[in-house]
Amino acid sequence: MNLLGRSIVGASDAPLNGTVFHAFNPVDGARLEPAFSAATPQESDSAVRLAADAFSAFSRIPGRERAVLLRSIAAGLERNAENLVSRAMLETALPKARLEGEVLRTSNQLKLFAEVLEEGSWVGARIDRADPNRKPAPKPDIRSMLRPLGPVVVFGASNFPLAFSVAGGDTASALAAGNPVIVKAHPAHPGVSELAARVIQQSVRECGLPEGVFSLLFDNGTQAGVALVRHSLVKAVGFTGSHAAGRALMDIAASRPDPIPFFGELGSTNPVFILPGALRERWEALASGLHGSFTLGAGQFCTKPGMVFVPEAPQAGSFAAELRRLTSASPQFHLLTAGIRKAYSSATAQRAAHQGIQSKAEYTVAHPKETQERQNGDGHDRGNDEQGFSVQAMFFETDIETFLKNSDFAAEVFGPATLLVHRASGKAALEIAEKLEGHLTATIHGTEEDLKENAALVAALEAKAGRLIFNGFPTGVEVCHAMVHGGPYPATTDGRSTSVGSQAIFRFTRPVCYQGFPEQSLPPELQDTNPLSILRMIDGKTTREAIK
Amino acid sequence: MNLLGRSIVGASDAPLNGTVFHAFNPVDGARLEPAFSAATPQESDSAVRLAADAFSAFSRIPGRERAVLLRSIAAGLERNAENLVSRAMLETALPKARLEGEVLRTSNQLKLFAEVLEEGSWVGARIDRADPNRKPAPKPDIRSMLRPLGPVVVFGASNFPLAFSVAGGDTASALAAGNPVIVKAHPAHPGVSELAARVIQQSVRECGLPEGVFSLLFDNGTQAGVALVRHSLVKAVGFTGSHAAGRALMDIAASRPDPIPFFGELGSTNPVFILPGALRERWEALASGLHGSFTLGAGQFCTKPGMVFVPEAPQAGSFAAELRRLTSASPQFHLLTAGIRKAYSSATAQRAAHQGIQSKAEYTVAHPKETQERQNGDGHDRGNDEQGFSVQAMFFETDIETFLKNSDFAAEVFGPATLLVHRASGKAALEIAEKLEGHLTATIHGTEEDLKENAALVAALEAKAGRLIFNGFPTGVEVCHAMVHGGPYPATTDGRSTSVGSQAIFRFTRPVCYQGFPEQSLPPELQDTNPLSILRMIDGKTTREAIK
Repeated sequence: MNLLGRSIVGASDAPLNGTVFHAFNPVDGARLEPAFSAATPQESDSAVRLAADAFSAFSRIPGRERAVLLRSIAAGLERNAENLVSRAMLETALPKARLEGEVLRTSNQLKLFAEVLEEGSWVGARIDRADPNRKPAPKPDIRSMLRPLGPVVVFGASNFPLAFSVAGGDTASALAAGNPVIVKAHPAHPGVSELAARVIQQSVRECGLPEGVFSLLFDNGTQAGVALVRHSLVKAVGFTGSHAAGRALMDIAASRPDPIPFFGELGSTNPVFILPGALRERWEALASGLHGSFTLGAGQFCTKPGMVFVPEAPQAGSFAAELRRLTSASPQFHLLTAGIRKAYSSATAQRAAHQGIQSKAEYTVAHPKETQERQNGDGHDRGNDEQGFSVQAMFFETDIETFLKNSDFAAEVFGPATLLVHRASGKAALEIAEKLEGHLTATIHGTEEDLKENAALVAALEAKAGRLIFNGFPTGVEVCHAMVHGGPYPATTDGRSTSVGSQAIFRFTRPVCYQGFPEQSLPPELQDTNPLSILRMIDGKTTREAIK
Repeated sequence: MNLLGRSIVGASDAPLNGTVFHAFNPVDGARLEPAFSAATPQESDSAVRLAADAFSAFSRIPGRERAVLLRSIAAGLERNAENLVSRAMLETALPKARLEGEVLRTSNQLKLFAEVLEEGSWVGARIDRADPNRKPAPKPDIRSMLRPLGPVVVFGASNFPLAFSVAGGDTASALAAGNPVIVKAHPAHPGVSELAARVIQQSVRECGLPEGVFSLLFDNGTQAGVALVRHSLVKAVGFTGSHAAGRALMDIAASRPDPIPFFGELGSTNPVFILPGALRERWEALASGLHGSFTLGAGQFCTKPGMVFVPEAPQAGSFAAELRRLTSASPQFHLLTAGIRKAYSSATAQRAAHQGIQSKAEYTVAHPKETQERQNGDGHDRGNDEQGFSVQAMFFETDIETFLKNSDFAAEVFGPATLLVHRASGKAALEIAEKLEGHLTATIHGTEEDLKENAALVAALEAKAGRLIFNGFPTGVEVCHAMVHGGPYPATTDGRSTSVGSQAIFRFTRPVCYQGFPEQSLPPELQDTNPLSILRMIDGKTTREAIK
């Protein structure tokens, strides 16, 4: 594993002339080699210019050829899985099995988009044929399809070093649609970012594509990212990260002389509503499932269930006690960065000290003692904490009245913590649902009887989330055609889209129509003969037939 | 025709307690009765609250029932066509035949969306079936479809008192998708706005729908519009109008605590490229067609061709001379408002006086003398101009060198004026195309040979416009399934959408997915039995078949 620590600008490696930074091992806080050189403004500019140069050619090659690129990247990731996983383990402390799964998820994502391109109908071709005899005016021939936007900037996420990072979903969907991509690597895992980027760079070269199709820029500050979002040749942005960073970048995108689409996934508390029948029938399984879900990946999933509403019922106490027991018995977790650990410690300490939680004798804050002791530790993002970025899981309890009075209880706490809200069913649950901000997911546990009785709750939640889950847990986002990983603001900056699943390709496209063009000057997707045999809407009817 | 001059808040008429304003007759500048009462902040707030209350019910009724509403509105408009046309003639001075056509266009738009709802497949239903035996983890059942956003605010346009106004495309598409609508009427034609709104109000009542499905607010200032875009319960905005107003509202939408989608159509200069073969073969027909297109509707179309590029060729002089002749022979035109006339007079005077046009002896500014004399006239938006809002058509000429040096030559001049740019072919045309900002349309006139030789020009234009036209004129926007009336900023605020044609429905929707829900709790579109017989993507394959 030979890491250069240099940004990748098209086919070239950037010189080592930026300020340098390192990754840290979350287990012991140790600095990892090599040093990574932050991209200079000139390097960011060059990457965008190369991307803009590549756009015309890349956007016009047949979808099947872009599929070849995606499959080549997928194969490259699988070939390099061992290197990717070992470096990712060092940089993230995520378990080996999880990271091995993430490599496969990442390559499968690329293959899913390749399939979409090979099938070809995703462009949504529509043809309205001419009618020269129509009165009062002849009807022109109009044909439309989706076309790519131009250079897309992707910000890698901290919590998925592969699947939401350099070769992750945003990159895969942007490339699939025909957009060159410039990735700003997340500074917490630059090594695995470089390894993935080398795979893409090699695939671009082997496919004979213009070098500007892909670049990777390093930076552990904000300079490179801001410059990219401001760059006049950048046409869209994909981002996964914190609300503060995402909103700042979104505001920059919106205040450009020419605003551009900004697809940011900013986080979510993912409410879970447990209805009376479910609590009665399977409180023990629910407690165990919920504990598994909120501690999975050290609670660093955007779909982590962060607030759980239970009705007043005899089993509510047992359910809470079981969650308390499981939380106290949880192993130590390592968070991704010193900054995340600091934020987690501070948010959980604040919550533990909160009047609305502490004042109720019957509610317990479940966490081992040592967590408290560590809360005043260093925590600056320097990685010099001898014990690494370790924390304990925490479980908080409150009741509906207190919850409704404290809007901060609905805020996301990134890490292995959750909040149980007692006496929250029926009208109270509905009131909560109606007051919710946007979330990525909303979950309901119930019997089918419960579900019928709570139709209004389901309707209210539908307006607040991109994915509704019945009798499941929100962690684990299936990569498939129907997945919606999105949701109203502030879960995402554009609730009209998904960042996971094949529908993610639509973000980086725009419809274009061609009026009166001769057959041979139209894209194949819109030619009479339908050479790609795709599904098209012809005069309002969807068919694979050619026009005769 | 009994006009009340009062805003319509759901089923109620607002009291006459706001400040009042009047429409003016563009022909003579005369004030038209009655007075219209501007909506108070309380009325705006009530309209939004009623819309939010109506959302849950309206968003859940079957699409076929929303189609009944749209067909009822269409029938109501047709029944009231005579009243609508006579009031619109008074308020806009547009010709009777054009307005009669616009009523039909408006009702046909509503019927097109009704057809889309009746067919039902527009929701893009996708189903990925569960696989409980999948390793390493079971695959859940995931089903997604498009759902409406919530209350939508629509700003009526000045230049289409019907088709882009109260019952126009934005309203039709927003209602079709299941969103309640609050229209802010354009103050230039409040009378025809009220008449159209009464039709919608009556249809909502007759269909037994919640009153909040539709409201109409009057205001000749900015207060009501700004309050609506800021309102926390408003979830999206449709706007057609000037760049200044559109950008201001867009910035408000983007700077909300929860930013919302803002679909603004802000204007466009609609470049026309005439290639050598076409100029040689049919310069006379091109001149006549172009003159018809840039003066149609007094040049007040967002698709008016405002800059025309011709190659250096023997016929270029004859083509320009013919355009000069036709322009000088044009009748007087009445612009919609005193403000539009003032802006037109000022922009054309500035252009006529421009060094780059005046300094070339061989280029002529074609306009009758009287236009010049009227340029210093009053023009404040008070309508007290004795001669109404009349202007003359104008035709400017310059050459490629001058054009490239003066970026203001590419700006839109709203009204019957255009700019011919000489010696603009081959590399020069390509350079222009690459430098263009976003436009609604880009037109190419050529032989098929021309088209093949200029493939790079077509490719460059495709990145700059929503609609490419070959051998046609951009005015006249066909309402059909394949139409794209959109384009990159600044043509619109969201180049990823269209405001005309059935694809406009997608603007006011978001995808939602349901994981693990039992059949009877799913929307009909996602049930196994496919009770609506719509096209769905099941495990990646598109079919109308039920799941067995």
